Amino acid sequence: MAVYNFNAGPAVLPKSVMLKAQEEFVDYRGCGYGIIEESHRAKPFEEVIQAAEANFRSLLNISDDYAVLFLQGGASLQFAMVPMNLAIPGKKIGFCDTGEWSHKAIKEAKILGNEIDMIYDGSADKFSHIDGIANWKFDKNLAYAHICSNNTIYGSQYLIYPNTGDVPLIADMSSDFMSRPFDINKFGLVFAGAQKNIGPAGATVVIMRKDLAARCPSTVPTMLRYTTHIDQGSLFNTPSTFGIYMIRLVTDWLVGLGGLPAIQAMNEAKAGKLYAAIDACKFYRGTVDKGSRSLMNVTFRIKEGDEDLEKKFVAEAKAAGLIGLKGHRAVGGLRASIYNAMPAEGIDALVEFMNAFAKANG
Amino acid sequence: MAVYNFNAGPAVLPKSVMLKAQEEFVDYRGCGYGIIEESHRAKPFEEVIQAAEANFRSLLNISDDYAVLFLQGGASLQFAMVPMNLAIPGKKIGFCDTGEWSHKAIKEAKILGNEIDMIYDGSADKFSHIDGIANWKFDKNLAYAHICSNNTIYGSQYLIYPNTGDVPLIADMSSDFMSRPFDINKFGLVFAGAQKNIGPAGATVVIMRKDLAARCPSTVPTMLRYTTHIDQGSLFNTPSTFGIYMIRLVTDWLVGLGGLPAIQAMNEAKAGKLYAAIDACKFYRGTVDKGSRSLMNVTFRIKEGDEDLEKKFVAEAKAAGLIGLKGHRAVGGLRASIYNAMPAEGIDALVEFMNAFAKANG
Repeated sequence: MAVYNFNAGPAVLPKSVMLKAQEEFVDYRGCGYGIIEESHRAKPFEEVIQAAEANFRSLLNISDDYAVLFLQGGASLQFAMVPMNLAIPGKKIGFCDTGEWSHKAIKEAKILGNEIDMIYDGSADKFSHIDGIANWKFDKNLAYAHICSNNTIYGSQYLIYPNTGDVPLIADMSSDFMSRPFDINKFGLVFAGAQKNIGPAGATVVIMRKDLAARCPSTVPTMLRYTTHIDQGSLFNTPSTFGIYMIRLVTDWLVGLGGLPAIQAMNEAKAGKLYAAIDACKFYRGTVDKGSRSLMNVTFRIKEGDEDLEKKFVAEAKAAGLIGLKGHRAVGGLRASIYNAMPAEGIDALVEFMNAFAKANG
Repeated sequence: MAVYNFNAGPAVLPKSVMLKAQEEFVDYRGCGYGIIEESHRAKPFEEVIQAAEANFRSLLNISDDYAVLFLQGGASLQFAMVPMNLAIPGKKIGFCDTGEWSHKAIKEAKILGNEIDMIYDGSADKFSHIDGIANWKFDKNLAYAHICSNNTIYGSQYLIYPNTGDVPLIADMSSDFMSRPFDINKFGLVFAGAQKNIGPAGATVVIMRKDLAARCPSTVPTMLRYTTHIDQGSLFNTPSTFGIYMIRLVTDWLVGLGGLPAIQAMNEAKAGKLYAAIDACKFYRGTVDKGSRSLMNVTFRIKEGDEDLEKKFVAEAKAAGLIGLKGHRAVGGLRASIYNAMPAEGIDALVEFMNAFAKANG
């Protein structure tokens, strides 16, 4: 039986990448031991981290004004590192609240004593859409403005990005990073935990305008300063070496596919097919309005939220090899996370299962 | 040709662990995909993290008064997290300076505004020994006292631990953690980057007395508070799941060997043979005094530090399959890191090479 992994992250990785990593796991390209055992200061690993950075620079057309950093701690640590480094005393931080991960970022900014300017608050509509992005207004005195580009839990996604003028735009892209093209020059800093689209958990990618790093006050610990990692090429201390190796393989795979326009087309086709199946059948209901639907995390419910039937759906899907379809515990319902590495066959199998389940239980 | 990896970390992992991880890399125990792709909230990974914790509790006889945490960021982040969480306003922090990694810990405590009480300073003797540990005096008003149990760069190691009375003793055990038995009840907190003795880079193990976590002020970001990770069983956010999986396999291997007394005997035999070879040959000189020599990082020089000959040694050793013998860039010379997973055959091969090199160049 084919198994498809719809987990929200850590998540499915490209099959060819998994096989390559397995093949060279105990003997990396003839060196006699695994890359996981290699010194982060040795040539084979230097080559890995440089290739990974070069892939990001090429896929996103990143100029030398920006640093590409490989850090640890996930988005959750970035929620603290961003204000620790980029807040400015006396200035507010702008936030656009589109769900759970925005809340967490806001919480950390407040713990650090910052005042918040809430640019957008989607809570009244239970985060079922992201509205009027083109008209959002950002006070020019903000230290920076923070968005979460894709909301893994609610299943909504920015289809366009706001115009913040001269205010640096910071984006938590954890769950849609490298799933579609974007113009890095519109951002001050983007960050992403690797474990959705680009690699395993424990590696975090930060791409930032180098000049912003100068804001960091001297009271911030060395490991939590972006300047440390910019100056040391992400090798101030031992990074997640195997994680970076996997990111290198995944980004090699992305380059081989034809880059971000190619993966975007594939993602649009996969998500399009799944949303069409949901919309075509009265048994299911998408939880996010058209126009804000995520290409990565497809959230839906059965009828008016029949929880028993949803449990049955999750269990029967699992028995059929379709894993991880339970919605996040904060919102319930169902969710299919269909990141870059989810093959089209996985979508076909899910749609087939959904139709059969609706017929049997509708 | 057999290859032996003497890198200081990331470092050699047990061969049986590497083969097991390779075998199940793309299909973890029949689930149809790899553990690296599994959700950190799913049963297979829950079982992994629980088994890893149980292994530590069993190997070190850890009571419920202590938490076992799987974090990220390595020792370098702990240098900041420890004072962020455990410093007490108005109280000094005691430090015992035995080399580079002590300095780094001191630096972070100072950045955070703490006053330091230097209990021991080994710099006058270039950190070639750790003297009089049993007589070190700790002011009872210290917030805590910090030591580095094994000095990877200088090759010295605490053979006994100081008595700090009621002052919590904090130990950076990155490079000798789980290489010998120790009484966890003598410590307030120990931490270790995994990449020497217990797994891959990117996972960090912290074992701490739970009551100490209450000291943490409310201004510390959520990810940097020990309470967060104690309360959430290291699953507040996505941890380094593959790293924890590897730690589980390595600690399974340790249990299978007979635990810490068994690995200690093996480490003493390996290091004993290597130091004996150094001492028996006038061509080489150990850089650390007997009585403070590390069982993990064996540092030595050729004659009076003939750097050209040392370069030749490193190059010829590499050609003979003995990798990573260059001393740390801060001190030069030669270093063989012989962690738990270095097989006895690696020591034999190194000793044989050293004798032949001395004969040819002496």
